[in-house]
Amino acid sequence: MSHKPAIILVHPQLGENIGMCARAMLNCGLTDLRLVAPRDGWPSDKAVAASSGALEKGVTAQVFDTTQEAVAGFHYVIATTARPRDMVKTVYTPHGAADSIWQRADRGEKTAILFGAERSGLTNEDVALANAVVTIPLNPDFTSLNIAQAVLLVSYAWRAARDETATSATARGDSPAATHDEITALVARLEDEMDKGGFFRSPELRPTLVRNLTALFMRTDMTSQEVRTFHGIISALTRSIEK
Amino acid sequence: MSHKPAIILVHPQLGENIGMCARAMLNCGLTDLRLVAPRDGWPSDKAVAASSGALEKGVTAQVFDTTQEAVAGFHYVIATTARPRDMVKTVYTPHGAADSIWQRADRGEKTAILFGAERSGLTNEDVALANAVVTIPLNPDFTSLNIAQAVLLVSYAWRAARDETATSATARGDSPAATHDEITALVARLEDEMDKGGFFRSPELRPTLVRNLTALFMRTDMTSQEVRTFHGIISALTRSIEK
Repeated sequence: MSHKPAIILVHPQLGENIGMCARAMLNCGLTDLRLVAPRDGWPSDKAVAASSGALEKGVTAQVFDTTQEAVAGFHYVIATTARPRDMVKTVYTPHGAADSIWQRADRGEKTAILFGAERSGLTNEDVALANAVVTIPLNPDFTSLNIAQAVLLVSYAWRAARDETATSATARGDSPAATHDEITALVARLEDEMDKGGFFRSPELRPTLVRNLTALFMRTDMTSQEVRTFHGIISALTRSIEK
Repeated sequence: MSHKPAIILVHPQLGENIGMCARAMLNCGLTDLRLVAPRDGWPSDKAVAASSGALEKGVTAQVFDTTQEAVAGFHYVIATTARPRDMVKTVYTPHGAADSIWQRADRGEKTAILFGAERSGLTNEDVALANAVVTIPLNPDFTSLNIAQAVLLVSYAWRAARDETATSATARGDSPAATHDEITALVARLEDEMDKGGFFRSPELRPTLVRNLTALFMRTDMTSQEVRTFHGIISALTRSIEK
């Protein structure tokens, strides 16, 4: 099994924020939360309440006194920073960090991602302990990001990097798609009724009109039920003409 | 200019959540917020406070009575849903939805993304009004996502789809990289001092040791300043031997 990254919050302040971070982690399937000297202590009822159950059914939290102790057992640590530091480090986007973490996990290495306190972020000393940095490329005029939202974006990038959900798929519930036959027959019947109604005043335009109508019905990706409904609509409309 | 998608919140409940959605939008450069019948009314002091300035410096909010009125002027609308609906629709991941929105915006079409109320989500009637659906592929055992976090993930996918930040880059602040010359000279000096200190007991292993040492120093991506510091370290260590 390849290791999942741990999330380490350094000097987090509000219990609510810790809870929301746990919730964001579990949304993305992460369960190893580490807290360095949380200001308001631990455990925290406010954190449990804000986690929407994540701290009760999946995420485990461990507390450490210092960042150095929290990162001790890891092979590769990435620090989240909003601004550049005067240090030589690889700077990843969340996507790049995710690829790097997966590669190392595939080799059996334990990885962790560091997040700083709500207002101040990580100290330079904390960043120096990391192997690399991740910076989220946001709107440069408005980068103020809640800590739980930073945890969510980085954790989701990790999850999405190996997620196999098709980027686009057609959902059709229990309704089977119509066959081409069914749609062609529908268009033919419609053409016939349009003819009776005097729609085709210009015979030379008729092939184009019919072709465009066929293309319209084909791209609707109709179900068999929808084709039957349309036949009913045509019947109703022609009855109303006959009256 | 290609259009940016609008974010439409249908029947949002808490002002705080609307504010946090506005903050997440502006983080990603989105500014067009539309509210369908917000439960607690509009404007909302709580929303302004929770937006961390986003509702004052960028995001504009308009209020509509119905979803139909809110989507009226758009060419392409995507509905965010957590669960499948019994409707034939294209279902996108956030990444797929982002690509689709950019393609349509490039053709000058106006696009919008619908989000439902905190607990209940969008009604089937709201979803029927959309051209397609976006579902975020989260941990299937824990999909409970705060509305602001859903807005953030979808908005960030939109931003990231055209963001040109390198997924990995070396930050070096004001410190210029060392040349290969400088590093080779450092390793040569180190080898020389190691020799004097009797490090190379096995002459046949010497080439391998020196090669591995060269590789180690090369991959550190040192700055010129760091090379000078290392020379100082070698000087200090050899002085301490001489004492």
